Amino acid sequence: MVINQGIEHFNSPLYLESGRILESYDIAYETYGNLDKKRSNAIVVFHALTGSQHAAGRYENDNKSGWWDPLIGDNKTIDTTKYFVICANILGGCNGSTGPMSIEYSSGKSYRLKFPVITISDIVKAQQNLFKRLGIEEAFAIIGGSLGAMQALCCSIEYPNFTKRVILLAGTYATSPWAISFNKIAMEGIVNDPRFKNGQYEADDFADEGLFGLALGRMVGHISFLSPYSMRKKFDRNYVDTDGLYELFGRFQVERYMEYNGYNFSKRFDPLSYLYIIKAMNIFDATRNYESLSDSLGFIKAKLYLIAFKGDLLFLPEDMETIKDTIISLGKKNMVEFAYIDSDYGHDAFLVEYDKFDMYIKKALDEEF
Amino acid sequence: MVINQGIEHFNSPLYLESGRILESYDIAYETYGNLDKKRSNAIVVFHALTGSQHAAGRYENDNKSGWWDPLIGDNKTIDTTKYFVICANILGGCNGSTGPMSIEYSSGKSYRLKFPVITISDIVKAQQNLFKRLGIEEAFAIIGGSLGAMQALCCSIEYPNFTKRVILLAGTYATSPWAISFNKIAMEGIVNDPRFKNGQYEADDFADEGLFGLALGRMVGHISFLSPYSMRKKFDRNYVDTDGLYELFGRFQVERYMEYNGYNFSKRFDPLSYLYIIKAMNIFDATRNYESLSDSLGFIKAKLYLIAFKGDLLFLPEDMETIKDTIISLGKKNMVEFAYIDSDYGHDAFLVEYDKFDMYIKKALDEEF
Repeated sequence: MVINQGIEHFNSPLYLESGRILESYDIAYETYGNLDKKRSNAIVVFHALTGSQHAAGRYENDNKSGWWDPLIGDNKTIDTTKYFVICANILGGCNGSTGPMSIEYSSGKSYRLKFPVITISDIVKAQQNLFKRLGIEEAFAIIGGSLGAMQALCCSIEYPNFTKRVILLAGTYATSPWAISFNKIAMEGIVNDPRFKNGQYEADDFADEGLFGLALGRMVGHISFLSPYSMRKKFDRNYVDTDGLYELFGRFQVERYMEYNGYNFSKRFDPLSYLYIIKAMNIFDATRNYESLSDSLGFIKAKLYLIAFKGDLLFLPEDMETIKDTIISLGKKNMVEFAYIDSDYGHDAFLVEYDKFDMYIKKALDEEF
Repeated sequence: MVINQGIEHFNSPLYLESGRILESYDIAYETYGNLDKKRSNAIVVFHALTGSQHAAGRYENDNKSGWWDPLIGDNKTIDTTKYFVICANILGGCNGSTGPMSIEYSSGKSYRLKFPVITISDIVKAQQNLFKRLGIEEAFAIIGGSLGAMQALCCSIEYPNFTKRVILLAGTYATSPWAISFNKIAMEGIVNDPRFKNGQYEADDFADEGLFGLALGRMVGHISFLSPYSMRKKFDRNYVDTDGLYELFGRFQVERYMEYNGYNFSKRFDPLSYLYIIKAMNIFDATRNYESLSDSLGFIKAKLYLIAFKGDLLFLPEDMETIKDTIISLGKKNMVEFAYIDSDYGHDAFLVEYDKFDMYIKKALDEEF
């Protein structure tokens, strides 16, 4: 499978939900597989909070594959010999798409905290412009987990003719206060870190040591992605070192895991971008511009395939069920399927338990309309 | 009900589990009700992580009552017209008992980070010395929730003749990696806060503004005490202010709640004490000095009354059930009772849902042996 990278520049303004305007912007993306002549085989993949457009494949000299590599590739569930897969870095991100550290045209300087608040709707709108630019008027399917599921749901409401198949994993129709409170820890950590300098840091300030505040945000993120059960299975009460006194004074494996992942993440991810993305997550509410959830979901024309995970505390399976029930209450019982996956992995399951859910994705892609 | 305050000074050394020694130490406490002539009506209450010896009653000019006031008082479930109730501030605490900011006799200075690591066993041992000093050789019952339940369980294993009735709420036999990971956020927050000065702060440095790192620890603590369900019930997605644009850019109620409680807490609680107590929590494992859980629980002579709460993610009801099953497997089925309380409040339920569990406490106190 070949990885194709692209970046598109848009010179026409993007009108944001907040009322503010981005005069111009870039959207970076990757594609895998080939677009067929009818331009009818595109599958859009939306990435999650800390993901990127690098969804699949592996670059030379890179020891890690894309974040959904087990699913996407030649002869895999999302088969790149058959489909043209595209994944775009979200607006506000830090992997090539326009975000807070991008240069503002009018001032010639980075936006930083002057960057406008971005919503999921804005992210989806910018992506639609990318797809149009690439000649994709309609996608065969769209799919996303977590923040990616928010984009997929938003897209299905606001662009109801864009696709017939919408697959949501570990998603919700509105971010819960539980999730907002985890994000709050990250926000407080970042803005109170002296090295964050109220957003006036240099782009390479954190390349070596990372940024404590963002590391902390990532650590607390890890808690929210996991569950008491998956943590016990993974770490139990194991110590990093178990000789004698160390057992009393020493570090637990789970502590080392959090430190390692937290600080490493903070070396590669932009803290301002993180702030803007968690804000976009917090304010996601599919009912905001509608009378009710029933009203907003009523706009959807595609079939929804919902994949929820037991023990997902961040985006409760109950919320996915509410989406299902709402669609059914609209008299569209055959336009929704709900798979409830038994997993101890909590929210993270959509990045781990492929064997338990890939058949539902396959089924969705195989269904004909 | 009269609140009696006391503080006892101990000049004989306390030998700690770590091998280190406290040359002398103080234990501060409160009592309610009167000790009868036979000294047989004492109920020991153990406080949780951020609690104190002020378990019940209200001081003049104080707008808050003790942390278990709905349960403890004249004619209440723990009836102070009948029982003599005693609650001691834990060793390592910051409400009068010896802790890291106490003066080390040999140096004449505060211990700070030279304070020895304290375990639940050490805390219980110091309290036993207090009870002996007060002439209480045997307690009518002992009771505690959360970290207090750890003390009660430890006491029942290590001092099996001390009482016949042990009531544990929202407890566990060993702290889970999930709980350790929440504590990790607090530890990282505190030790990385520049104003913490590696423990060399002045005692009143945080009285006005609080300490960010500890506030963060308290905020993440609040998440762990609650549940996705109780948060939704309490805050939903409500904004602090809902006019126009504010809805997009503004603060959520849950964010304000966390800020308010986090920073207020950090004005009144000592950060070093917090570090030592969460360390004591992390390393609590009732099996540490035993072959197995069955081995350690085998020492218990008292009857165990276990009260677990559905949705307690911090100390899983399953762990309380493991305690029950272990006691039963020891052939002591009539020495354990297990109440599983349906609650959306998560771990916090033992401080909230009195109506749902006070009858189990009453039943335990009424049972005769």
